[in-house]
Amino acid sequence: MIEYKHKVHVYYRDVDQMGVVYYARYFEYFEEARTELLRSVGISVPDIEKAGYYLPVIACNCSYKNPVKFDDDIIIITKIKDRPRSKLKIEYEVMKSGNILCANGETIHSFINKIGKAVKPPKEIINILKDK
Amino acid sequence: MIEYKHKVHVYYRDVDQMGVVYYARYFEYFEEARTELLRSVGISVPDIEKAGYYLPVIACNCSYKNPVKFDDDIIIITKIKDRPRSKLKIEYEVMKSGNILCANGETIHSFINKIGKAVKPPKEIINILKDK
Amino acid sequence: MIEYKHKVHVYYRDVDQMGVVYYARYFEYFEEARTELLRSVGISVPDIEKAGYYLPVIACNCSYKNPVKFDDDIIIITKIKDRPRSKLKIEYEVMKSGNILCANGETIHSFINKIGKAVKPPKEIINILKDK
Amino acid sequence: MIEYKHKVHVYYRDVDQMGVVYYARYFEYFEEARTELLRSVGISVPDIEKAGYYLPVIACNCSYKNPVKFDDDIIIITKIKDRPRSKLKIEYEVMKSGNILCANGETIHSFINKIGKAVKPPKEIINILKDK
Repeated sequence: MIEYKHKVHVYYRDVDQMGVVYYARYFEYFEEARTELLRSVGISVPDIEKAGYYLPVIACNCSYKNPVKFDDDIIIITKIKDRPRSKLKIEYEVMKSGNILCANGETIHSFINKIGKAVKPPKEIINILKDK
Repeated sequence: MIEYKHKVHVYYRDVDQMGVVYYARYFEYFEEARTELLRSVGISVPDIEKAGYYLPVIACNCSYKNPVKFDDDIIIITKIKDRPRSKLKIEYEVMKSGNILCANGETIHSFINKIGKAVKPPKEIINILKDK
Repeated sequence: MIEYKHKVHVYYRDVDQMGVVYYARYFEYFEEARTELLRSVGISVPDIEKAGYYLPVIACNCSYKNPVKFDDDIIIITKIKDRPRSKLKIEYEVMKSGNILCANGETIHSFINKIGKAVKPPKEIINILKDK
Repeated sequence: MIEYKHKVHVYYRDVDQMGVVYYARYFEYFEEARTELLRSVGISVPDIEKAGYYLPVIACNCSYKNPVKFDDDIIIITKIKDRPRSKLKIEYEVMKSGNILCANGETIHSFINKIGKAVKPPKEIINILKDK
């Protein structure tokens, strides 16, 4: 399993008139977090794209447990539990001060080439993820 | 069942460097669509809020089937199938020209009051939705 | 002069915890509005891009006069006053009900090719805009 | 003069199909940067709001000099040069690796109270900013 903790600070742009982070913004936080998780094990998303691969999200979900507010510091705990086959699943937990779970969710990714055709994951990625 | 079809046009701001709508943006389209579905049966979200109620999203998901691109016209088909009890479920299908399903998803909403406490749905909303 | 009026409806995603549209969002509305202005005179942004041209924003500004709120209908009055030379200037006024000016601003665009080099505006665009 | 350097990392969500940061997103970076500049001299935006004051943007501008791309690290150099009177001006420079200026801009803020009426800047803010 690979795990990475990514810190995000919440700014005005993310907060709606209920005074809480707008629900769609969590998926932007998830993107930040998974980019940093991959970087932490030596996988650079720009390099993957230069090699002709893309990892589009094919499904995602999020459950909201406790509100996140302007100026909050949150930690996104991101995990890859399974070796990717044709798909890669990434899990997320959003924590705030006091060890409070604010939200959890998942993204499922496929691997495609430049013309949008599904392909096997690049060997470099398989090799990096298989022994974790 | 209540159903509403809401048209969205895709602009540059929504499209990422893969040339497709960024995955989180679909949840903004869903918000547009459900606001208009509710309006179509006489429920105004601003009026609900003035009455002291909020309908935060407590869970959501989306599956991506076919890409949506810059300048595409899409239709969001939005449905409420079940009478809300403590929670309200709304379903979405994103269709593009040629009757192609691009994405489908759900949002689950609770009803809370101004201090964030879960409350029963307002009677006006129950009454409007129960006979559909 | 070319003028186009584009209607926008304000949703939750655009509104911050002051209860007003977040300042950066106006530039997204401006993008919508200029895309529709260009379409109204027969200029398709996707076609321009297929022809190998891009119109990046090289400068922009906005002044905020009156707040725009959730569920407001606004009209973006968009104008091209001058025939483009190396640059294209577009002007915007955001109006709400009661003929109230909410904001006004400008975007300045250059014309570049696929490798990012500044080029003369395409003749088709010059020809369309020169006699207006 | 007060100056603060704030680092931003660019993620997919910010990048459009030209492969560069979408022009409106810079104003979100500016918001991050000014929040951190104010924090660096002991001014907390949440505390200002709890005290009943808001600092809405009443005008802003940005000039784009060099593109910023996915995965770039940028520094926002943020400056307050003048003691605020009824208005507060903040200046921004966006720099990338190699000391390259990518963009520069300004935001002008007024001070308002909870009912949206223009007020004098709070004394605490004046006192902090006057001697810098």
